[in-house]
Amino acid sequence: VIQTNGLEEALAEFAAERDWDQFHTPKNLALSLVGEVGELCELLQWKTEDDIASALSKPEFRSDLSDEIADVLIYLVRLASVTGIDLNEAVTRKIEKNGDRYPAKEVRGRADKRP
Amino acid sequence: VIQTNGLEEALAEFAAERDWDQFHTPKNLALSLVGEVGELCELLQWKTEDDIASALSKPEFRSDLSDEIADVLIYLVRLASVTGIDLNEAVTRKIEKNGDRYPAKEVRGRADKRP
Amino acid sequence: VIQTNGLEEALAEFAAERDWDQFHTPKNLALSLVGEVGELCELLQWKTEDDIASALSKPEFRSDLSDEIADVLIYLVRLASVTGIDLNEAVTRKIEKNGDRYPAKEVRGRADKRP
Amino acid sequence: VIQTNGLEEALAEFAAERDWDQFHTPKNLALSLVGEVGELCELLQWKTEDDIASALSKPEFRSDLSDEIADVLIYLVRLASVTGIDLNEAVTRKIEKNGDRYPAKEVRGRADKRP
Repeated sequence: VIQTNGLEEALAEFAAERDWDQFHTPKNLALSLVGEVGELCELLQWKTEDDIASALSKPEFRSDLSDEIADVLIYLVRLASVTGIDLNEAVTRKIEKNGDRYPAKEVRGRADKRP
Repeated sequence: VIQTNGLEEALAEFAAERDWDQFHTPKNLALSLVGEVGELCELLQWKTEDDIASALSKPEFRSDLSDEIADVLIYLVRLASVTGIDLNEAVTRKIEKNGDRYPAKEVRGRADKRP
Repeated sequence: VIQTNGLEEALAEFAAERDWDQFHTPKNLALSLVGEVGELCELLQWKTEDDIASALSKPEFRSDLSDEIADVLIYLVRLASVTGIDLNEAVTRKIEKNGDRYPAKEVRGRADKRP
Repeated sequence: VIQTNGLEEALAEFAAERDWDQFHTPKNLALSLVGEVGELCELLQWKTEDDIASALSKPEFRSDLSDEIADVLIYLVRLASVTGIDLNEAVTRKIEKNGDRYPAKEVRGRADKRP
């Protein structure tokens, strides 16, 4: 369902060209991921859901949000890459697990069962 | 470089079948993303980089890490989906920006320039 | 304005009794802090602000929230402790900085100026 | 063990003077907390533990770290404040729980038992 080989390779090349592999350890990448998630949350922190819906029609906000989402994805792909986790396999397997754990019949419309 | 259309659709269908769209607002998904990033960090928190390298050869740790990385990706894709951000476009554009901002010649091997 | 000496000492003693100082490095504590913030966010993630207001009248939710807030504080105090940061001094200084940066007259009622 | 009444009041006054109470809802404050934790992690992300130990002797790094730790504390105290959680009670109770859950004899020097 997801093909990230091209992305994984592009990011590996980006790091190699800059001799950054030495910094891309699992713990460092986890902390970087948190940094980017923090920036993403800062975009939303003082806005109501309605404010966000309005802001999404403005190019500047869309661009900022797009960049923060991309940054989170970039570090997540790097983390998967340096730990040898196949993202495609990981997500396919997890969706199957979630399907077993949250059967549609039992959890429909319920927030107490993890949506 | 990344094709997530299939994944986006699979997750949208997963949510629709469970009537979970009502919960999948941007702020809720951002908080959920943080929850999953927190679980990912908990897997690494008391391990040294060497401990992690060793743990990666054990099926149980790999499986746990794989699941947490997948959970982060799942909520990130949902967030992009409900805000109408095209992940592929977002990440392609961001990598280009990063390339301009961090020319290989200037930042090679330097941690003070964001790796 | 805040006196955490007693808390800092209690937590230092708690760690020492368990020989846990070896694990309480800055990076490990930062990852642990993220883990606890993640658990805090999970308590709120599917609730609207109204849902949270209602839930706050239920002892079980209050107890869960209280525990997660405490966990975040505990790791934050430990992080300050092992890095030799005086929490009281840090927060007093930061409130002064914030007061200079966000004069009441200029930022009143505005979310675009960091509230 | 911790006295934050003064801090809680100082921050409540700071918000009131700026008419910021309208923004300080539990979900907004949780997202803000994540933003600050993200900034804290960004200070540490590319440094080894040894690098951090060295950096701690430099006034600029200490000042940056001090500010980020303070920001996390500030939003945490606000979150406790608006949800009516008594931080002192919360942390006292949690340390007792942790003491019961992690008896020194059983967990000494073990990272597999939450340090």
